[in-house]
Amino acid sequence: MTDRRRLRELGQQMRVDAVRAADAAGSGHPTSSMSAADLMAVLANNYLRYDFDAPTAPGNDHLIFSKGHASPLLYALYKACGALSDEELLSYRQLGSRLEGHPTPRLPWVDVATGSLGQGLPIGVGIALAGRYLDQLPYRVWVLCGDSELTEGSVWEAVEYAGDTSLGNLIAILDINRLGQRGPTRHGWEVDAYRRRIAAFGWHTVEIDGHDIEAIDDAYAQAEATPDRPTAIIARTVKGAGVAAVADREGAHGKPLADAEAAIAELGGRRDLRIDVARPQIVPRPRRFPDSPLELPTYEVGDQVATRDAFGAAVTALGAARGDVVVLDGEVADSTRAQQFARAHPERFIECYIAEQQMVAAAVGLQARGWRPYATTFAAFLNRAYDFIRMAAIGRSTLVLVGSHAGVAIGRDGPSQMGLEDIAALRAIHGSVVLHPCDATSTAHLTAALAEHRGIGYLRTMRGETPVRYEAGDHFEIGGSRLLRSSAADRATVVAAGVTVVEAVRAADTLATEGVGVRVIDAYSVKPVDAPTLRTSAAETGHIVTVEDHWPEGGLGDAVLDVFADTRPAPRIMKLAVSGMPASASPREQLREAGIDADTIAAAVRAMLAQDEYATASRRG
Amino acid sequence: MTDRRRLRELGQQMRVDAVRAADAAGSGHPTSSMSAADLMAVLANNYLRYDFDAPTAPGNDHLIFSKGHASPLLYALYKACGALSDEELLSYRQLGSRLEGHPTPRLPWVDVATGSLGQGLPIGVGIALAGRYLDQLPYRVWVLCGDSELTEGSVWEAVEYAGDTSLGNLIAILDINRLGQRGPTRHGWEVDAYRRRIAAFGWHTVEIDGHDIEAIDDAYAQAEATPDRPTAIIARTVKGAGVAAVADREGAHGKPLADAEAAIAELGGRRDLRIDVARPQIVPRPRRFPDSPLELPTYEVGDQVATRDAFGAAVTALGAARGDVVVLDGEVADSTRAQQFARAHPERFIECYIAEQQMVAAAVGLQARGWRPYATTFAAFLNRAYDFIRMAAIGRSTLVLVGSHAGVAIGRDGPSQMGLEDIAALRAIHGSVVLHPCDATSTAHLTAALAEHRGIGYLRTMRGETPVRYEAGDHFEIGGSRLLRSSAADRATVVAAGVTVVEAVRAADTLATEGVGVRVIDAYSVKPVDAPTLRTSAAETGHIVTVEDHWPEGGLGDAVLDVFADTRPAPRIMKLAVSGMPASASPREQLREAGIDADTIAAAVRAMLAQDEYATASRRG
Repeated sequence: MTDRRRLRELGQQMRVDAVRAADAAGSGHPTSSMSAADLMAVLANNYLRYDFDAPTAPGNDHLIFSKGHASPLLYALYKACGALSDEELLSYRQLGSRLEGHPTPRLPWVDVATGSLGQGLPIGVGIALAGRYLDQLPYRVWVLCGDSELTEGSVWEAVEYAGDTSLGNLIAILDINRLGQRGPTRHGWEVDAYRRRIAAFGWHTVEIDGHDIEAIDDAYAQAEATPDRPTAIIARTVKGAGVAAVADREGAHGKPLADAEAAIAELGGRRDLRIDVARPQIVPRPRRFPDSPLELPTYEVGDQVATRDAFGAAVTALGAARGDVVVLDGEVADSTRAQQFARAHPERFIECYIAEQQMVAAAVGLQARGWRPYATTFAAFLNRAYDFIRMAAIGRSTLVLVGSHAGVAIGRDGPSQMGLEDIAALRAIHGSVVLHPCDATSTAHLTAALAEHRGIGYLRTMRGETPVRYEAGDHFEIGGSRLLRSSAADRATVVAAGVTVVEAVRAADTLATEGVGVRVIDAYSVKPVDAPTLRTSAAETGHIVTVEDHWPEGGLGDAVLDVFADTRPAPRIMKLAVSGMPASASPREQLREAGIDADTIAAAVRAMLAQDEYATASRRG
Repeated sequence: MTDRRRLRELGQQMRVDAVRAADAAGSGHPTSSMSAADLMAVLANNYLRYDFDAPTAPGNDHLIFSKGHASPLLYALYKACGALSDEELLSYRQLGSRLEGHPTPRLPWVDVATGSLGQGLPIGVGIALAGRYLDQLPYRVWVLCGDSELTEGSVWEAVEYAGDTSLGNLIAILDINRLGQRGPTRHGWEVDAYRRRIAAFGWHTVEIDGHDIEAIDDAYAQAEATPDRPTAIIARTVKGAGVAAVADREGAHGKPLADAEAAIAELGGRRDLRIDVARPQIVPRPRRFPDSPLELPTYEVGDQVATRDAFGAAVTALGAARGDVVVLDGEVADSTRAQQFARAHPERFIECYIAEQQMVAAAVGLQARGWRPYATTFAAFLNRAYDFIRMAAIGRSTLVLVGSHAGVAIGRDGPSQMGLEDIAALRAIHGSVVLHPCDATSTAHLTAALAEHRGIGYLRTMRGETPVRYEAGDHFEIGGSRLLRSSAADRATVVAAGVTVVEAVRAADTLATEGVGVRVIDAYSVKPVDAPTLRTSAAETGHIVTVEDHWPEGGLGDAVLDVFADTRPAPRIMKLAVSGMPASASPREQLREAGIDADTIAAAVRAMLAQDEYATASRRG
C-alpha cells in the first residue's frame, strides 16, 4: 500500500470507527469527526511524537481537541494507535466508560477537558509556552479547532498571545467544514477570511484542502519548518465527508447517522490499520527551578498591612522555596502585588495582559505540564474566566486563583471593580477551596497552603490595610478557622472573614463594654468551612451573626447556614451582607452603607438577644 | 478664536477639569483622561449629535466610554456641554454623587455601566445594531476604547460582529497611549499592529496623531463618510498629555497628580468654554413591531414536553404579542428552541454565533434602546458571559437570560455541557430573578412573566421531556411556588425545581403507599423563593428535603436554608444535590448516580423520620 493510499485508508477507518462509536452510544457527533479524519490520520501517522505507554514522558507532543465534540475521532485515533481496544471504543458515552461525550483527563492521553468551545487553543498556548519558556523541551502542541468556535473571543486572545510570543511549537489545525450546530458558520468556506485575520496577528498560515493527503502532509511539514512563529493550518473540509447522506448537509450535527451500516459500507467497511506513532525524542528532564526551605514573610501584630501585600510577599517566598510555582497576571500585578514575584522570579512570571480567559487557560496548560500556577487579577475580573474555571475543574486541574480588591471595602472605584459574587461563583466550582484571610500572617500561611491543594484553590485578598492579628507561629489550614474573642459567658457568635473580621472584633469589644459577651470566629476558610468549631460555638452561644463583604447569596453566610441545616438544637442565625448596589464612597462609608460595619453588627446582636428575651418573657408571662 | 485654537483650548479645559475632579476625590484616573481629551473635544464640538435636555430622544447619538476609568474626562465633557455644574464635577467619587468612579446610568446621559474593560465596544455593537436594523434610525455610536483593553477577547468578538454586519454607524476611537496600568501595553505605539488586525475584520481604519486637531477632525469626517463599514480611529496619544511630570511616564496610572495646582497652571489654568452640542436630526419614532393579545401555547396535562420546547413556543407567542421582544442566540437555537422565534420573527432574531460575551453585550445595548432581549444558550455557556451579566446589573439593565440543558439530566454529553453552577452564579447577581420550571405550562407562563421584570431575569430550561403538570389557567408568578402533594398528615416537605419535581412527586407517591404523607413544593421561583409557603409547610411538616440538579453550593437548597435562618422552631433540613463529578450516562442513570432521583429522595425522607423517632424514643426512654 502506498503511503498516500494507507493514509486515505486510515482516514476512512477513523470515520468508520467514529460512526460506530456514535451508533453504539445512540448519540455523539460523527459528522464533526468525519471532516477532520484525514487531518488526524496524517498527523498521527507522520508527525505526532508520542509514547502511548508513557503519557507523562516529557518529550511527548500534546494533542488537544478544542472541538471536544469530535471525541469519536479522538477515540478512533487512540484505537488506531493501539491505545484503546475496539471493545472500549464501543463503550463510548456509557455509564462508567472513560470515553466520555467530550474528552477529559480520565484518559491518560488527554491533558485537559474540552467541550466548552474556544478553550482548547488558549490552553494549548499555555502548554506551548511551558514547553518553550519553562520546560525548555522540544515538544509540539497540536490543537484541532472547529470553525464555529473561532467566533469565541478567547480564541483571539490565544491568537494574539501566541503570535506575540512567537510560539513556533504551537500548531492550530482549523477544520473549516462550513457548518455549525444550527447552520452555516459566519464565513462558511471563505477560508481566506480566517487566513487574513490570523495572519494579521503574526501567525504563519497555510490554506489547504483538508481532504488532500499531500496538501495536509505539506502543511504539517511547513509548520515543522516554522519554529519562530505559530502556524495555523486552515483546512477546507466537508462535514460528514465520505457519506453522501450527511456530507455537507445541514441538520446532521450532533447525532448518530440514521443508517450506520450503509454509511460504514459506503466508507469501505471496517479496517484494522495500526499506526505506529513515533516515539518522542530522548529529551532532558524538563527544567525546574531549584527548591529551598520556605521562609514566609512575618509581620508584627498590630501593624497595618494589606492582605494583597502579604500575598505578594508570600508568593514570592513560595517561589523561592518551590521551583514549580509560576505566577500569571492580567495586567494588574502592581495592584494584586504579583509584581513582587515578577521582580524576584522573572522567568516564572507570565504577563497575560487584560485577557483573563487566556490567563486561566494558560494556568490550565501549565499545570498539565506539572507547574503550580497562581493566576492573579481583581476578584471581580476572575468572573471573565468563569467558564474556564468550571472547565478546569472538569479537567481535574490543580491551580490557584487569587482575586484582589474584594468587596465594597475597596472604596471609591465603585461597583465595577468590587468582587461581590466571587465567593458564590467559586464555591460552586467542583472540588474548590475558597479562602479569605483577614490579616497578613494568615494570608502568608494560606498562600503557601494552597500550593498543596489538589483542585481549584481561590484566595480572596483585599485592597486596604487591616491590622496584623496573628503571630508568625500561628497555625492556619484549609478548613480551619480562628477564635478571636471567646468567653464562657458568650451569648452570640459573630462569624466573619476578611475585612468583616475587623468589624466583628470591634463590635464584640463594644458589646463587651455593655456586658454582652460575643464570640468572634475568623472563618478564613469559607470552603470548606470549619463546621466543628461553628457547631461548638453555636451550642455554647445559641445565636450566630454572619457578616461578609459580598452579596447575600452563596457567600460565607450560606456556607454557615449549610452547617446547621440539620443540627439540633439549631442556633438562630442572622446574615449580614451587601444588599444594595454600592456606588463610590470611602471604604468606611461603604462598610456602613452596606450594613456590614461594627455598628451594624453590634446592633444586630443586640436585636437578636432582645427578641429572645422578649420571647422568653412572653413564654413566662 | 479660530476653530482650531478653540478645540485645543477645549481639550486643555477638559484636562484641567479631569485633574481637578481627581484631585478633589483623592483618587481616579486623570492621566488616562488626558490622553483622550483632544479626541473628545473635537467629537463633542464638531460631530456629536445629542440633546442633553432629552437624553432619551431617539435621534441622539450614543457615546460610550469603554475605558470607564477615564470618567473624569467624560464628566469634564458633560460639564463643557453644560450638563453638569462645576460643583457637581467636584463631587466626583463622593458618597451620594452621581459621578461614580466608573460611569453608570445613574447619569441620564450614560447608557450602560462600564469599568470592566473590553465591554463598551461589544455593548456599542448592540446599540449600533439596534439603530441600523431594529430602530432604523440614523444615530451613531461612538465608543472610546483604551489600548490595554484591546487584549480582551470580547473586543474581537465585537470587531468581528461589527465588521460582518457592516455597522457603519459604529465608530471606535482607540486611545493608543502606550501605557497600561502596570506598564507598557503589548504593542506600545506600534499603531499599525492594531490597524492590521482590525482591518482584517473588514473595518475602515484611520491612523492619526490623537493630539493633532485637524487629523482628528478629518478622521471623524472619514467615519461619517463611511456608512457601509464600521470605522476604527487609531489614535497615537500620550498618557498624561499636557503635564510634563506625568506625560508618558510609567507609574502615573490611576492616581491624582501629585501637584494638581502646578499641573493646572501648566495646562494654562481653568477655562469655562462651553460646547453647544448639535441637536440630533428630527427623526421618526424608532420602529417597533405591532403588539397583539398574548396567546401562550397550551398543553395537555400528562403529555411529555421539554421545557426548552415550551420556552421556544412561548417566546414566539410573546414576540407576536409584544413588538419589543428580541431574541439573541449563541449558535445553538436549534437546541434552545429559540429557532422557533427565528422562523416567526426573523427581523427580531439576532444570531451572535458562539460568542456569549457579545451576545449578552448586544442584549445590554438593545435594552438601552428600549428593546426586550431574551439571550439564549446552554446554561453552562452563560458562564462565559458572567462578567457581562454582573456589569449589566450594575448598569441597571433589564434583560432575560435563558439557559437550556440544565443539570446532569442532559445525559450522555457529559459535564462540559451541563449547567450545574448557573443558579449559584445568577442568584449572586444583584436584583436578579431565577426561575426553573418543571413543566411546559409553567415555562410558558414564566417566559411571559419575565418580560415584565425590571433587572436581570434568568430562565433555566431542560433538555429532556417532563410531564405537563399544570392547566393552562393555572397561575405562576415571580416569587411563587406550587403545592403538588399535600395532606394534613404530611410529615415532611420535599422542595424541588425542574426535573427534581418529577422525582419528588414519584418519591411522595411511593412514600404514600407506605403510609408516609409527604408534601411536594414546586419551587419554580428559586429567587425570590416563596418564603411564606415554605414557612407554612415547614411549620406543618417539620422536616424539609431540598433536591436540585445543581452543585450543593448556592442553589435551591441554599435559597431554602436562607428562609429558615432565623425561624423558630426551625425545621430539620436535608439538602440533596449533585456532589460528585458526573460523566456520560443516560439521564436516568445520571439522576441516580447524582443522588437526586426518586429513590434517593424517598430514602432521605425515611432516614430523617427514623432519626427523629429514635431521638424521641431516646428522650422518652
